[in-house]
Amino acid sequence: MTNLLPHHDGSPIHVSDLEPSLGDTVTLRLRVPVGYGPLAAVRVRSNPDHEPAWSTATPAGVADGWQWWDAPLRIANPRQGYRWVLQHEDGRVEWLNQAGIHSLETLDTEDFAVIAHPAPPRWMYDAVMYQIFPDRFARSQAADERELPDWAIPAEWDDPVDPVLPGRSQQFYGGDLDGIVDRLDHLADLGIDLIYLTPFFPAASNHRYDSSSFDRVDPLLGGDEALVRLVEAAHARGIRVIGDLTSNHSGDRHEWFQAAVGHPDAPESDYYYFVDDENLRYEAWLGTPSLPKFNWSSQALRDRFIEGPDSVVAKWLDAPYRLDGWRIDVANMTGRLGAIDVNADVRRVLRRTMIEVNPDTVLLAEVANDPSADLQGDGWHGAMTYPPFTRPLWAWLGEARGAAYTTAEGDVRHDPWFFGQPIGGIPRYTARDLVAAMTRFTSNLPWRVRLGNMQALDSHDTGRFASVARPGTIPIAVGLSMTLPGMPVVFAGDEFGDTGVDGEMSRVPMPWGSDERDPAVAERLEVYRDLIGLRRAHPALARGGLRWVHVDDASLAFVREGETETVLVVASTGDLDVELPAAALPGAHRAETLYGQATLGVADDGAVLLSAEGPVFAAWRLPAPAAPDLAPDGPDQSWSGIADARWRTTAEEAERS
Amino acid sequence: MTNLLPHHDGSPIHVSDLEPSLGDTVTLRLRVPVGYGPLAAVRVRSNPDHEPAWSTATPAGVADGWQWWDAPLRIANPRQGYRWVLQHEDGRVEWLNQAGIHSLETLDTEDFAVIAHPAPPRWMYDAVMYQIFPDRFARSQAADERELPDWAIPAEWDDPVDPVLPGRSQQFYGGDLDGIVDRLDHLADLGIDLIYLTPFFPAASNHRYDSSSFDRVDPLLGGDEALVRLVEAAHARGIRVIGDLTSNHSGDRHEWFQAAVGHPDAPESDYYYFVDDENLRYEAWLGTPSLPKFNWSSQALRDRFIEGPDSVVAKWLDAPYRLDGWRIDVANMTGRLGAIDVNADVRRVLRRTMIEVNPDTVLLAEVANDPSADLQGDGWHGAMTYPPFTRPLWAWLGEARGAAYTTAEGDVRHDPWFFGQPIGGIPRYTARDLVAAMTRFTSNLPWRVRLGNMQALDSHDTGRFASVARPGTIPIAVGLSMTLPGMPVVFAGDEFGDTGVDGEMSRVPMPWGSDERDPAVAERLEVYRDLIGLRRAHPALARGGLRWVHVDDASLAFVREGETETVLVVASTGDLDVELPAAALPGAHRAETLYGQATLGVADDGAVLLSAEGPVFAAWRLPAPAAPDLAPDGPDQSWSGIADARWRTTAEEAERS
Repeated sequence: MTNLLPHHDGSPIHVSDLEPSLGDTVTLRLRVPVGYGPLAAVRVRSNPDHEPAWSTATPAGVADGWQWWDAPLRIANPRQGYRWVLQHEDGRVEWLNQAGIHSLETLDTEDFAVIAHPAPPRWMYDAVMYQIFPDRFARSQAADERELPDWAIPAEWDDPVDPVLPGRSQQFYGGDLDGIVDRLDHLADLGIDLIYLTPFFPAASNHRYDSSSFDRVDPLLGGDEALVRLVEAAHARGIRVIGDLTSNHSGDRHEWFQAAVGHPDAPESDYYYFVDDENLRYEAWLGTPSLPKFNWSSQALRDRFIEGPDSVVAKWLDAPYRLDGWRIDVANMTGRLGAIDVNADVRRVLRRTMIEVNPDTVLLAEVANDPSADLQGDGWHGAMTYPPFTRPLWAWLGEARGAAYTTAEGDVRHDPWFFGQPIGGIPRYTARDLVAAMTRFTSNLPWRVRLGNMQALDSHDTGRFASVARPGTIPIAVGLSMTLPGMPVVFAGDEFGDTGVDGEMSRVPMPWGSDERDPAVAERLEVYRDLIGLRRAHPALARGGLRWVHVDDASLAFVREGETETVLVVASTGDLDVELPAAALPGAHRAETLYGQATLGVADDGAVLLSAEGPVFAAWRLPAPAAPDLAPDGPDQSWSGIADARWRTTAEEAERS
Repeated sequence: MTNLLPHHDGSPIHVSDLEPSLGDTVTLRLRVPVGYGPLAAVRVRSNPDHEPAWSTATPAGVADGWQWWDAPLRIANPRQGYRWVLQHEDGRVEWLNQAGIHSLETLDTEDFAVIAHPAPPRWMYDAVMYQIFPDRFARSQAADERELPDWAIPAEWDDPVDPVLPGRSQQFYGGDLDGIVDRLDHLADLGIDLIYLTPFFPAASNHRYDSSSFDRVDPLLGGDEALVRLVEAAHARGIRVIGDLTSNHSGDRHEWFQAAVGHPDAPESDYYYFVDDENLRYEAWLGTPSLPKFNWSSQALRDRFIEGPDSVVAKWLDAPYRLDGWRIDVANMTGRLGAIDVNADVRRVLRRTMIEVNPDTVLLAEVANDPSADLQGDGWHGAMTYPPFTRPLWAWLGEARGAAYTTAEGDVRHDPWFFGQPIGGIPRYTARDLVAAMTRFTSNLPWRVRLGNMQALDSHDTGRFASVARPGTIPIAVGLSMTLPGMPVVFAGDEFGDTGVDGEMSRVPMPWGSDERDPAVAERLEVYRDLIGLRRAHPALARGGLRWVHVDDASLAFVREGETETVLVVASTGDLDVELPAAALPGAHRAETLYGQATLGVADDGAVLLSAEGPVFAAWRLPAPAAPDLAPDGPDQSWSGIADARWRTTAEEAERS
């Protein structure tokens, strides 16, 4: 598909205010290819208090082959949905929403949406995240002196990961927070500016998702002081740090659970769902005894954990620790059990507390599947989620059957699962499918939330993409994670070419220095450095709009359009030879290559030719769209809902019924 | 499209229990055309507490060219969504949800859904509704003696409707409830079994949506006793009666508002949103002073209006009035204002009260646009809504420009609106578009709710379909309203061929006796009698599944499959000549014609040929699908979430992280 279509998205060149307040009127902007139509009218349909309201767009000018239209949108609700409606002179009607352009009336859920809830910190949009699993990242000197607990099975740094119990959760490499401090130069050199630490609280496992307390940092990681040292050292380099909180459950060794289990009269008794009189039987995560589920109907739990300045959530954001936010584990199940669903309360209260302590923090939620139900801007700023990016990316660029592994019996097998789905391994998507899947899973998310979604190739819960990547596709995968709308995430070790067939084997200790021994690793590091650098150097990749200019089975091309520049991105698994109309890429004759081995040529008529030998990932810098000025604030065209008993006119009676 | 695809819907032959309780395990059934595949596995993916769970389907047998698969579904949440996943031996994966079959992973919102909230009364599924606008239906003797209020502008029964203010809301024909009693024979003869009365409370307009009290029936309609007489007389004929309640606003003459306006200390003060100290300025419906908006955060308002046996909602369902339910006006805006949204509270509390008084009642909500956000089975049983049926039907069968009308200046104009949407009149849909639009607007509604959606050709808020119908399409429109899943609705007068270009002109007094003067009217009445009779005589049209067997630009064909019979329905605006494979219509050789002038032929190979001169609407009776027996209850295959502190095994540790 290379035909030009009307376009709108949530970016600054299309929306005058991304952080409006209730009652504001925002100016929305639509661009229509010149010659598209003729149009009898262009309107915006919104849905204040779930009752449709319409405003009429006015032509704002023509530039580079596009007719621009402006329309006012009154922000009547905290999530203000809207869609564009194009009325053609021939009677045809088209509806433009986040899923695309339609000849049939569309659903409210796929409307564009502006959010009037408190905005995330602006640094979130620009951040490139680096995920660290502390036990496997780096050991400091101090680690050698530490006494290991009974449960720990000591491992040398170059021992293979043991995926079988008990090693799976108890094999202990001893990475610690000061070890991370020692390696900050690597992170600075890589170019990341946000560290996400999986849990640092004391626990009885190497992953620490079964924490025994939220009040202190695991002494095996260096304790509270080590966290202060890490955050200060990171901040000194312009790197932020967020933690990982388990809001769905604690470990059964947690001090709160220990106080409650067997003690029905304990104050902590109602923090969990005990189902018997002796407080011995309880709801647990998928029935796992080591992970008792929190009862968020308990105000006492809220006060202690998430609500107010004395809560756990507040403590670690405040001095002396000064974390820059939280990633919330199993956020999708949090506060949900049978007929109970207080998930919205939890995420809203949690964010309110964070704002009280430090509004310059982020709140990200693990929602491994369709995140749209919970990501409407009222709490989570974004999701650690796989369907909008990671899964379709694997399906396009990964080996169809998935990673091969050898069983204890020596048989070679392929993982029949795909991100927890028993569907026979990795499905096979085309580039077209990738775009369709990304569109499907982002069409019901507000643009602002979409920009906060973590865009990872893999994580501590998945295999490593490098284990399944088809030849030559790693720069494409990394490149797309850095250039599509969302927060790029590098799982520590990916930049060294680490592999791992599943979420256990992927937790390999960092192969420090392997880049000096192995040119392939050095090359992989280079790919990451360059592509992270590309993202960091071009704000359009963080906050710019997204407009697809070409998609076929093997390749895709899109532009991220900002206020000061446009970045053109091309990815193809095969050879590339695409011609685009001039209006698809205004200013292409001034294109500067930013990355990759591809050719951009401009014909006399302005048509653009993109060619390359595949697989290829390439990017160019183009001028920003020559759009007419966008009024910072539109006139308030909205009716007021306020009536006055002293003024009554027959005209108003008209409205009756 | 005539290709056979795997099929599932919410009907009894595919779901073992439509009224499950939390914790039950329901058996789900999928049918796959023989030869489709080969399939390596068939699974059901559900999402308990928003965390995916999978169950494996087992083959249940083969019949009539279909392979049947059964899988258990645990009802973990009050709305239990699920989808089918087909894993092909060649590695392809297909996802089946309410939107159809997909090669890409699908959204949670389009999952099939079983509801564990209290079920609607079963009579709802079988009901054929008749909408009455009391002022325009029939006058009783008593009406002649009544004194008219100052606001009323008396009109003779055959006066033309005055669409201009003040007549628009004050022109008064004087229809009353005893007038309806006098005409019950007509309704019985027509075959309807449910009357929906627009408001009967006292007001200052002919439509009474600006009620001045909820405590008594308008004396102009005959008062409380007349309502008792009407309901008793209707019940005696097996006809139920529901009322119309304005939950978003009252009239400004309402006794509650009069007590509150200008009296900040009145108990009723917080029933509304006053914004000044003197209680003079207030939130009103779209700012209309005559319609002050209710504040549903007020518990006092809830107690008086919707909560408990002393509430307004309860009073009229109880003796001596015994209404059979409520239609809720402007339900979509109810409880919503800016940052406030207590809509879910209102609909749940309202339904709970109804269940306390009489669970054998229905609760229907006016949601004129996309109803999916509020219709997930927790309160409203169905919606008076236009996008899933009425609008696309008009777009397929109506004149593209809409009804013509003559202005005061004598110019002929066409309505530029379409159901309140300024889109240049009626859009032009094909039959394919109709099916796509109906699918889009029902894919995110639970099957049980879909069956409660009002399926009207028009209402007191719209023009009459007969004003825009293309030649020969009325039997198609009425036929589809009676045969598609949902509650058929006849707006009083449609059966006499009434016309009206908009929601004012459509409120014409009933032309009693016109069928004796005009053969065309008699013929129209016959069409309604026959098609209502068709619906009433065949429960499969009420509760059966829906499987499309053919769709093209001009025609469509589907089957409603029940446990005892199948009804095949065909509609076409042009000539029909369609061939279907044998498995599409098992038992077609035993087809009995139920309605319409069309031919169904069966070839030697079992292929079915459907032919007719268009426009045509036709229906046949076929045998029920020869499906293997469906176990009433599936085995409980679900994990338990309950753990026990006394039992701990290392294996359980495995689950950690």
